[in-house]
Amino acid sequence: MEKLEALFDHITARVNVNLKPMGIDVRNLLKNAIPRERHLQYYAFYALTEDHPISFKFTHSNLAGTYMLGKTQVDRSVLYKSDVRGDELKRKGDVVEFNGVKTKLFYDEVIRIINSFLCKTLVHNHSKNPEVPEVFRILNTVAMHYSNIHGTTTEGVYLGPFSTVDLSVMHNCVVGDYSYVQAGDLSRQTIEPGRVWVKANGLFEFNYVYPEGVVEQYVKLDENGKLSGKFIDYVDEFKEDFVPIYSTVQLEQMHGNEAEGSYVSPYAVIKGDCTIGKNALIAQRAHIENSSIGEGANAQENCYIKNSTYEGGNVTAHGGKVINTTSGRNVFVGFNSFVHGTDENRITIGRDSIIMPHTIIDAVEPITIPENSAVWGYVTKQADLETQSVNLDDLAKATDVKLGNATFKGDGKAFVDAFRHRIQHILEENGAFYDGTDETRGHAQKTQDACFNILQPFQSGPDAGMYPAMTIGG
Amino acid sequence: MEKLEALFDHITARVNVNLKPMGIDVRNLLKNAIPRERHLQYYAFYALTEDHPISFKFTHSNLAGTYMLGKTQVDRSVLYKSDVRGDELKRKGDVVEFNGVKTKLFYDEVIRIINSFLCKTLVHNHSKNPEVPEVFRILNTVAMHYSNIHGTTTEGVYLGPFSTVDLSVMHNCVVGDYSYVQAGDLSRQTIEPGRVWVKANGLFEFNYVYPEGVVEQYVKLDENGKLSGKFIDYVDEFKEDFVPIYSTVQLEQMHGNEAEGSYVSPYAVIKGDCTIGKNALIAQRAHIENSSIGEGANAQENCYIKNSTYEGGNVTAHGGKVINTTSGRNVFVGFNSFVHGTDENRITIGRDSIIMPHTIIDAVEPITIPENSAVWGYVTKQADLETQSVNLDDLAKATDVKLGNATFKGDGKAFVDAFRHRIQHILEENGAFYDGTDETRGHAQKTQDACFNILQPFQSGPDAGMYPAMTIGG
Repeated sequence: MEKLEALFDHITARVNVNLKPMGIDVRNLLKNAIPRERHLQYYAFYALTEDHPISFKFTHSNLAGTYMLGKTQVDRSVLYKSDVRGDELKRKGDVVEFNGVKTKLFYDEVIRIINSFLCKTLVHNHSKNPEVPEVFRILNTVAMHYSNIHGTTTEGVYLGPFSTVDLSVMHNCVVGDYSYVQAGDLSRQTIEPGRVWVKANGLFEFNYVYPEGVVEQYVKLDENGKLSGKFIDYVDEFKEDFVPIYSTVQLEQMHGNEAEGSYVSPYAVIKGDCTIGKNALIAQRAHIENSSIGEGANAQENCYIKNSTYEGGNVTAHGGKVINTTSGRNVFVGFNSFVHGTDENRITIGRDSIIMPHTIIDAVEPITIPENSAVWGYVTKQADLETQSVNLDDLAKATDVKLGNATFKGDGKAFVDAFRHRIQHILEENGAFYDGTDETRGHAQKTQDACFNILQPFQSGPDAGMYPAMTIGG
Repeated sequence: MEKLEALFDHITARVNVNLKPMGIDVRNLLKNAIPRERHLQYYAFYALTEDHPISFKFTHSNLAGTYMLGKTQVDRSVLYKSDVRGDELKRKGDVVEFNGVKTKLFYDEVIRIINSFLCKTLVHNHSKNPEVPEVFRILNTVAMHYSNIHGTTTEGVYLGPFSTVDLSVMHNCVVGDYSYVQAGDLSRQTIEPGRVWVKANGLFEFNYVYPEGVVEQYVKLDENGKLSGKFIDYVDEFKEDFVPIYSTVQLEQMHGNEAEGSYVSPYAVIKGDCTIGKNALIAQRAHIENSSIGEGANAQENCYIKNSTYEGGNVTAHGGKVINTTSGRNVFVGFNSFVHGTDENRITIGRDSIIMPHTIIDAVEPITIPENSAVWGYVTKQADLETQSVNLDDLAKATDVKLGNATFKGDGKAFVDAFRHRIQHILEENGAFYDGTDETRGHAQKTQDACFNILQPFQSGPDAGMYPAMTIGG
């Protein structure tokens, strides 16, 4: 395993040289977070479809358990059980606009991951970086368990576990555990743990910070990379359900009887009594149990949905967990949100409501969220909603708002519109409105006929754990 | 499937342009032999080990169900459930001798398959072609079911089902069903069905032709590529046993408890009560049932061994079938031989005996083959051995011999020595004499830690059935 060890040293050096000035040393994390032998145990899989450019190249890397789709390059990196989903990359000829200036892409955008360590990380969407719109770059980056790198260029960035960087550009930043950042162009910033920060320059800014002592109950990473807390406890319960799935070569759909236009990844778990509606999408590594997923609804990577009902058009963003919940039409549950009802204390979410990214609703009594609400922060009782939710129409009329730990500044209408627009866009991208025409095809339809190349590393000798250099497609 | 169809047309044209003057038209064979949809159903697998150069490139091809190891290139070809085993290729710096002239290899030898269709074909060993010793070339070639291309350059060659071309160079040749040819440099020759022909220029020549009507009972290919006869009937009985093996991702050894130094491919079937001895090798696609495989013995691709005992040091060449047989030490069973005893009519083979390639022993009474014999041809009763076997010491003293349908001309000692040398070499190559030292390591030891990249074709659209271009390794 000499080469794998040298690779870890290399990544450590590249990240530390950028982040030591920010007070971060990733050496122990990289040494201990994942036992070395696991990097030999799991295969990587690259999806083939007719609808996405087949272009994949990796060199000097370990890709254990990682899923990849679309145009991707990986060099001198360790990707552990991560998802690199290039199905929303920009295409050659697309025109993009930055600050009012338009420019045309001269080739298909590529996700390029260099000198980085990603652990159970989701990489999706496309880059918002005007420097090179053709490259979604992840460079000298360490992303810990269940972090999301969503449409964000990261150069010299540390992401704590369950953190999300969304539609941004980040250079030498530290993102704390369970922080969510969607704040444009950031350089040399440290984001504290449990902060939810949404900012559109000159338009609006939303800020929330979890009360002291809360985030640690749900996410805690010690200096050796050992993760604890209620999130990982919850997820680990269902680990075994994935074992048979990963040990089978998927030559055809595992899950029959889905409705027309829907797609259930063969790498998803559907357990107990479930129904999956028309045009619904269940991504790989989603876990659905005793639930009804209505028409056009979706569950992205690392979503766990149990004993719940989705009436239709629901979005569960990457890492969203929804348990013992009844969710009305078009409800949105943001990244890594934890909507945790129990048998006795069910959660009901009214239609058109938005559960903001990184929201924890951990019910100790039944909770009902009115329709057309935005909810954020830490909610355990009905009364908590008073300071942690707002009616969206009210917000759209407001400018500056302070509610509990949250502040909102700027144009409420712009904020609400942006969210609404985004949800609509997500549904479109996922194929929720598919009517048989080419224009309405989305991920659910485009991945119907996906099959998977399964890639393994050397098992012994100095190369053990390294994947042989490989190029697929053009 | 337009591209796959065009690929078949391309191969047809390239082969026909060479072979039509020889009276061969492969159009209907290629059109009908394998239903098109099967080319989408089966995955290809490429083995990774520390001991073989990782260098694999394919373009514009279908590789359904094909296994590959070592340095291989495939272009504009269809490889259906074939085995391309590059573990005996020559290496950079090796010195080879042709007609007394020595030359040194300037790079690792590569198997290069272009414009060809191989169906359940075994490609193994290394090329004997002085033109470019670095390239084992298979060009404009159609090889039908269970044929063997063993150390033979083929350019514009048709191989009938269950035929073997061994250690030769062939240019525009037609090899009949179940023919075996090891005859140096051949051009524009048609080898009749059921001929066994071993020739070393200026030294010796062995010739045997099956009596009329026999080969057709065992192998028959109609003009549409439909195969019938006792061989395929026998093999098809065991088809289902391979299904679970191919539907599992092999992350570790399936078969535990093998003796030290032995290797059982995870893609082999071990069924019923079997023992596998020290340093034994069971290759992928071998099927072993209720049998004891002694120390250092081996079973190559497409071997079927049932209710049999191997005392040790036994070689079963590619496609050899041994049923209800007791086989003494160091017995050799050649390519595609069918040693078919029954419960009542067992076959016993004495130690050091050689069952020549393409021998059929289909017992209607118990048959005992004395030790140190060579056996060939078509044997159903003990008395048949009178004209179809010879004591090897006697042969070593003989020059010209005619026995039944067989003729032997030339130096008997050279013939016997060549065979003995080859068997010894096969055992060495397979690691039968492994004693823990590097010098004695062979295939059984070198493939211990193999793992497999699993490659799939596009499932829909015009690309359906085509594998995306791929490069693995240097």
